[in-house]
Amino acid sequence: MTIEQFVARSEGEWRSMRSGHSLAFQQFEQILSTITVKILGGNDPRVIDLLSSSPENRAKYTTPFLIQWEAESDWSKEISKENSSGSSILIPIPKTKSSGLLIRSIGYTEAIPLISTYCFLSDGTFKLKSKYEKTTTEERIWHLSENVRCRSSVVYTTKTSGILQTSFASEIKHLKP
Amino acid sequence: MTIEQFVARSEGEWRSMRSGHSLAFQQFEQILSTITVKILGGNDPRVIDLLSSSPENRAKYTTPFLIQWEAESDWSKEISKENSSGSSILIPIPKTKSSGLLIRSIGYTEAIPLISTYCFLSDGTFKLKSKYEKTTTEERIWHLSENVRCRSSVVYTTKTSGILQTSFASEIKHLKP
Repeated sequence: MTIEQFVARSEGEWRSMRSGHSLAFQQFEQILSTITVKILGGNDPRVIDLLSSSPENRAKYTTPFLIQWEAESDWSKEISKENSSGSSILIPIPKTKSSGLLIRSIGYTEAIPLISTYCFLSDGTFKLKSKYEKTTTEERIWHLSENVRCRSSVVYTTKTSGILQTSFASEIKHLKP
Repeated sequence: MTIEQFVARSEGEWRSMRSGHSLAFQQFEQILSTITVKILGGNDPRVIDLLSSSPENRAKYTTPFLIQWEAESDWSKEISKENSSGSSILIPIPKTKSSGLLIRSIGYTEAIPLISTYCFLSDGTFKLKSKYEKTTTEERIWHLSENVRCRSSVVYTTKTSGILQTSFASEIKHLKP
């Protein structure tokens, strides 16, 4: 699996069922949301802008994309306000065939720009590691079929590596008629 | 990661938070349970009995173990009765350093004996595939630390490969004082 193949598979509108587990409190959280992934051109002003923040990587980028997410209002009580909807520009910078960097305009756990590292496991599972100031996240995405994928995440404290939360999403793509 | 190392890491009593996703109905399910994994000796009569059902593999087995699970009664409405508690004997039969068979006395999705196949991904994630009469399951287990692991599963229909259910569990081991 290459990052270009992975981004191409990811493109589209996904209906997401996501469960969160707070390990210390044994609390469950459940969120229905829509996630849209769209490949962007290299001339998109948002891409040019983000690349300018990472000049050393500018020459090597591939398939920039936009992620937009919107949670359903029914579940609003359980969703922290800042994460209920939003969007982020992402730009992969391959280092090898199966690993590299991912520049993000806005992180998910903390709303700041960051550079994550990614790699693919032997079965094509995508692994993404992001280090924020207070937290570190590890995300996995694996496709079950053309239109179904799973996504898991773990949030650690950056200082002590304590595990704060895990989550798991089952996502179905709306295939175009 | 070898199967022996994996079984040794798995031994102990785990507190499990599990979320199930029914994709067709967009229904969530959540279950708290206790899972106990115990390594058994080769002289255990349950091990001898199970090996006798698979004579061609008898000579090559390693670290048989017992899994017992018990769901909390609070959540009983959401738990189908036959899966709320139970136990299973499992016997690994390595074929290569990172793959092999797993003989099980009782399957989870359907309560019949079966032989599953396992392999380890490049980062040590354990993958287990089990083919029952009506359903096929793929399970993944990966350790986040000595005492925290994640477990995901997908249930497919064996005939059409349609995806019936996904699930994800976050599990914490009770460390001995």
